[in-house]
Amino acid sequence: MKLNILGCYAATPRTLTNPTSQVLEIKNHLFLIDCGEGTQVQLRKNRIKFSRIDHIFISHLHGDHFFGLPGLISTLRLLGREKELHVYGPKGIKEGITLMLKLGDSWTNFPLLFHELSSKIPEVVFEDDNVSVETIPLDHRIYTNGFLFREKEGERKLNIQSVAKFKIDKAYFRNIKKGKDVTAEDGTIIPNKLLTIDPPAPKSYAFCSDTAYRPEIVPQIKEVDALYHESTFLQSEEHLTTKTKHATAKEAATIAKSADVGALVLGHYSTRYKTIDFFKKEAEEIFPNVHLADDGKVFEF
Amino acid sequence: MKLNILGCYAATPRTLTNPTSQVLEIKNHLFLIDCGEGTQVQLRKNRIKFSRIDHIFISHLHGDHFFGLPGLISTLRLLGREKELHVYGPKGIKEGITLMLKLGDSWTNFPLLFHELSSKIPEVVFEDDNVSVETIPLDHRIYTNGFLFREKEGERKLNIQSVAKFKIDKAYFRNIKKGKDVTAEDGTIIPNKLLTIDPPAPKSYAFCSDTAYRPEIVPQIKEVDALYHESTFLQSEEHLTTKTKHATAKEAATIAKSADVGALVLGHYSTRYKTIDFFKKEAEEIFPNVHLADDGKVFEF
Repeated sequence: MKLNILGCYAATPRTLTNPTSQVLEIKNHLFLIDCGEGTQVQLRKNRIKFSRIDHIFISHLHGDHFFGLPGLISTLRLLGREKELHVYGPKGIKEGITLMLKLGDSWTNFPLLFHELSSKIPEVVFEDDNVSVETIPLDHRIYTNGFLFREKEGERKLNIQSVAKFKIDKAYFRNIKKGKDVTAEDGTIIPNKLLTIDPPAPKSYAFCSDTAYRPEIVPQIKEVDALYHESTFLQSEEHLTTKTKHATAKEAATIAKSADVGALVLGHYSTRYKTIDFFKKEAEEIFPNVHLADDGKVFEF
Repeated sequence: MKLNILGCYAATPRTLTNPTSQVLEIKNHLFLIDCGEGTQVQLRKNRIKFSRIDHIFISHLHGDHFFGLPGLISTLRLLGREKELHVYGPKGIKEGITLMLKLGDSWTNFPLLFHELSSKIPEVVFEDDNVSVETIPLDHRIYTNGFLFREKEGERKLNIQSVAKFKIDKAYFRNIKKGKDVTAEDGTIIPNKLLTIDPPAPKSYAFCSDTAYRPEIVPQIKEVDALYHESTFLQSEEHLTTKTKHATAKEAATIAKSADVGALVLGHYSTRYKTIDFFKKEAEEIFPNVHLADDGKVFEF
């Protein structure tokens, strides 16, 4: 599971910092999460192939999380895309993006499918054989969802020595990997657990931005391998969180600790801070495994 | 008159090139012309004060000419702008921009005034004591205008020696600068031309992008000091101009020559070309004073 941070700063693009966007590589999927202005340039800088992105998840409709979307879609059109593109985001996103394209007579020549979200309780919005994605309702000034990405349990691995010992024919391998037992010619049943070993544990990733401190999300993100949680402010600016509905580094770490996650990645820093080092320091007082997102950075979990 | 090129490449933003946007400084005005994605970052790179921009002119509603506008307006809001912002562009621009801001509950706290254009003949869209701006109807795939910026004739300059010779009281200076004659105490009239010298000739600038070759614009832009004319293609790709409604460097130069302009600035280069040098070469075969726009470049005329 690989997380490419394209942009992770609050508010508007600046010469050296970009608004929110990231790409999660998980089981051969490339999921784009949020799409602030400049995302297509950041994708190029990070050498991510546009054609591999089929699913885009938008947390909420503040400009720093989706103003890059009309441009990215236009670029996909110019690149001659033909396959479907799925966009998941709050109700209204379809009208907004469609109008921006319509104004320029820039209809896409590929199916552009919007999945508009309005549920205030978690819902599965994407699922295939390998991965599921569900919303994490957050607490922000406008309707906002985080997203929880979960790998599904993979096939069981053949225990080569054991399979050889029982002289099992290759024809059975497919079923064994799926967890089935084997019945030998003499009628005895060889249980699957003797023939296989556990596959790697499926990974999970929770993206939570933008949001005020919201402990209600803890049960849903319990024990995920990695949690990206916004930390717009340091605790010294905690008085700003109520009106802006953002969180502090300490609050992000408290969520990480309560949910017992593997790693915490901080981001969405207010541009008022000269350096982001203090975010790590503040969070580490609560939770040990803290990482700082930064534009262009890649994490492997 | 100073022209800041923020972006001048066709199609979508790339790692090193930006879509169309430029700032014209003329008689203390800063006019923003077109606003492709990434314009606000380019403004910062060129150290142009956001607060000095009060008028934005959008040629047409293809993404590479206006997808940076919602983000720029959001930034002006965050910067606490209070004074009016005027946006001139094709009909539909108000609905598009307003919707993008509305989706995020991001109403501006300053008056955002749209001037929607639909005329197919030239019209004056802005005028004050110093400058006028009129549309230049162009020939593109969708409704498109260029813009013609004209300084107005300034006040006449006092001829200090002459004024001293005639012993003219300071109280008359205001009227003399406005071109009026002076009646001496003995009743003789001292004609203005004896008391003043001509002010600097007013400057003019024509922005023409995007457009197919359109000689009909020549009378309107006759003898402007500087003409920015798109040259998406070289003559070797002339066969592409009919469908795309773009022009070649040779065609741009032909317009410049027919209109007898002071200088031709080329831009809106297709990204198919590895170098832009050939555009200059091709144009110079027709017209002598050719300049190549490039992102970040500043011209003074």
